[in-house]
Amino acid sequence: MDVEPVPGTELLKPFRARDPRALARAISRCESGRGAELIRALYPQSGRAVTVGLTGPPGVGKSTLTGALVAHIRAQGKTVGVISVDPSSPFSHGALLGDRIRLTEHFTDPDVFIRSMASRGHLGGLAGATADAVTLMDAFGKDVVLIETVGVGQSEIEIAEVADTTLVALQPGSGDSVQVLKAGVLEIADVFVVNKSDHPMALQLQREIRSMMEMLHFSGWVPTLVATQALAGKGIDKLWESILAHDAWLRDTGAIRNKRRAAFAHRVRQLALGTLEGRIETVIDELGDDLDPYAAADLVLQRFGVRDGVHALGNVRARGGVRATVKGL
Amino acid sequence: MDVEPVPGTELLKPFRARDPRALARAISRCESGRGAELIRALYPQSGRAVTVGLTGPPGVGKSTLTGALVAHIRAQGKTVGVISVDPSSPFSHGALLGDRIRLTEHFTDPDVFIRSMASRGHLGGLAGATADAVTLMDAFGKDVVLIETVGVGQSEIEIAEVADTTLVALQPGSGDSVQVLKAGVLEIADVFVVNKSDHPMALQLQREIRSMMEMLHFSGWVPTLVATQALAGKGIDKLWESILAHDAWLRDTGAIRNKRRAAFAHRVRQLALGTLEGRIETVIDELGDDLDPYAAADLVLQRFGVRDGVHALGNVRARGGVRATVKGL
Repeated sequence: MDVEPVPGTELLKPFRARDPRALARAISRCESGRGAELIRALYPQSGRAVTVGLTGPPGVGKSTLTGALVAHIRAQGKTVGVISVDPSSPFSHGALLGDRIRLTEHFTDPDVFIRSMASRGHLGGLAGATADAVTLMDAFGKDVVLIETVGVGQSEIEIAEVADTTLVALQPGSGDSVQVLKAGVLEIADVFVVNKSDHPMALQLQREIRSMMEMLHFSGWVPTLVATQALAGKGIDKLWESILAHDAWLRDTGAIRNKRRAAFAHRVRQLALGTLEGRIETVIDELGDDLDPYAAADLVLQRFGVRDGVHALGNVRARGGVRATVKGL
Repeated sequence: MDVEPVPGTELLKPFRARDPRALARAISRCESGRGAELIRALYPQSGRAVTVGLTGPPGVGKSTLTGALVAHIRAQGKTVGVISVDPSSPFSHGALLGDRIRLTEHFTDPDVFIRSMASRGHLGGLAGATADAVTLMDAFGKDVVLIETVGVGQSEIEIAEVADTTLVALQPGSGDSVQVLKAGVLEIADVFVVNKSDHPMALQLQREIRSMMEMLHFSGWVPTLVATQALAGKGIDKLWESILAHDAWLRDTGAIRNKRRAAFAHRVRQLALGTLEGRIETVIDELGDDLDPYAAADLVLQRFGVRDGVHALGNVRARGGVRATVKGL
């Protein structure tokens, strides 16, 4: 009788030998939901990389910023992994292609690994495989992992739970910028990047960001503000310094432990809720038409051993983690 | 011994007597997670209203469109409820105020009920109380319920699961528009609204929308395209006709049953997952530091009677509902 190997573990040897094809295949496995064994095996080797999330509204120049950052980091002799998260849509291939073109100059560099991923996940936004890809690139030995997200929404706010350092890029002269700050993005920024800083409205945007920051009380890290012209490569050195400063702050103060613990909890929650959601659908499909939503939810919850019903208040989220008020269990 | 009344049910009498203060208080109760009994009692009276969701990028003029639609609907002698969903943020009060100013002319009309709600929910985006507010306004007797969301993200796509008819508003000459279409919003539109149609780029945007639509295969309803100048009140009659045409199509073909069933399933899922999420946090907090995320998720799932672990593939969503591939249970 043949002994079937644990799925995916045949990738471990080439992965540990730093074969980029093994990294690519490992990420693909996670994307298709078959990455559990790989992550189990490689998770202990992760946790060393500097992980950086970059978000901001469309058109701000995120791909150009990413390209410029990659060039700068490579010039320091460090290796880089890039994850470009794109909303899933019949049309997203065009966007992916556009991003890739901007990163083309790095395609032939064996120490730069670039991967586009769809943001298929809808439970909280970011696809689960994004976190797995970060773990894999980190365990593979990349010094820096950059995660670039498109647009501003739930998945963009969520990036702060995956990356150690979150960059929020804004552009001057766009009505979007203030809206973006309003949409909860202000709270996740470790570094603000005002790109296209040669624009006549750039100083005004910087003032707006500063005055909004004054309205918040920061305990711990106070976000820094960096002006860049990514296309011309200007300000990228300062941006990288700001990233390193935040990373050093995280490590010096021990705040990195909370960050990593929050990222771990985030991924566990994603996996558990994703699985439970599938089960819940089956139960809902079996429900009759004569129920109100609360009565139906109570029946669903009973199937998962929760006997005291819906607690809408059991679900309160605070910045940088989750604080839940829970009854029972 | 005093018999304590079921919480919230003292509102039922004034609610049924159509006292707007009872409607306001009922929504507040749902927002604070104490609305279960009210919804249970009033759900059977809901299902009559025309429910319309309006989404689109910031700056497109959604509040002006809402104001113009309300005026038009009122001129037909119909009553209206408006729910304005705003991202929760320390700064959102400004945005709410701005929206409200645009709706001011309707504040003294007793047949228009306006409510701003925070989009606090992060499980999928829209706060659960939004769906409850729709149920309440519907049961209260509003002929039309308009739900306006800010920005484009997960919660905006989700609006298609709450409202019968979804309007996607776009503005000419904004780089956002095509990005918005890419971000999965194309698929949820029943009616496209090109606002600010006096803009020189308006015809080009209409062409872009049409050519993107040609790339999709529509089974059933084919989205309509309406040009408006909401500030001048132009095109609002055509927009209202398009809404009624979609509503009539839903009812004539029986598609409304699937829509309503999907909305019901959406709310049940939201309530059940919201409760489970709170419980999951408690379990995660108790986990040790020596686990990888998959092993941790398996332990969490065991607490809810799921013994065969994480199935990342058990979570696949299709448009207009959820199709899940599930093992076990």
